[in-house]
Amino acid sequence: MKQFTGKIEITLRKGILDVQGKAVENALHSIEFEMISSVRIGRYVELSVEAENYDTAMDLVSEACKKLIANPIIEDFVIVIEEIN
Amino acid sequence: MKQFTGKIEITLRKGILDVQGKAVENALHSIEFEMISSVRIGRYVELSVEAENYDTAMDLVSEACKKLIANPIIEDFVIVIEEIN
Repeated sequence: MKQFTGKIEITLRKGILDVQGKAVENALHSIEFEMISSVRIGRYVELSVEAENYDTAMDLVSEACKKLIANPIIEDFVIVIEEIN
Repeated sequence: MKQFTGKIEITLRKGILDVQGKAVENALHSIEFEMISSVRIGRYVELSVEAENYDTAMDLVSEACKKLIANPIIEDFVIVIEEIN
């Protein structure tokens, strides 16, 4: 078995209203950061996986995202798997 | 002025207890994902910036993170800036 690190970027799908992002954007504008716009807030998850190879690790993390970590109806996710040496 | 996209990964500093991550890890173990461990949950922020050049855009986003987006006392952040053509 090998050790891998998984990094997952979870974002709200396009078209889904991001209330938290809008609130942060308004707050930024009120403290003179008017040149920042389109703020979207998602989640970032780091985890360790034990698996036989890269493909198994990727499948496992992808399955975990679909079942529990992300909400596939309103969220998209990008997974990066790295082997630890 | 040029248009840039900023991507920010915000993670809890090492040593800070991640209650949410622990809860997700326990939930994963209960649905047969025992090979996943050390789950840490952070935030992922995407935004647009208007700035003269890469350095100005990076400074702006870094300043916004320190002042409002992240909490530098308990969180670390990594910023990636990309120019939009």
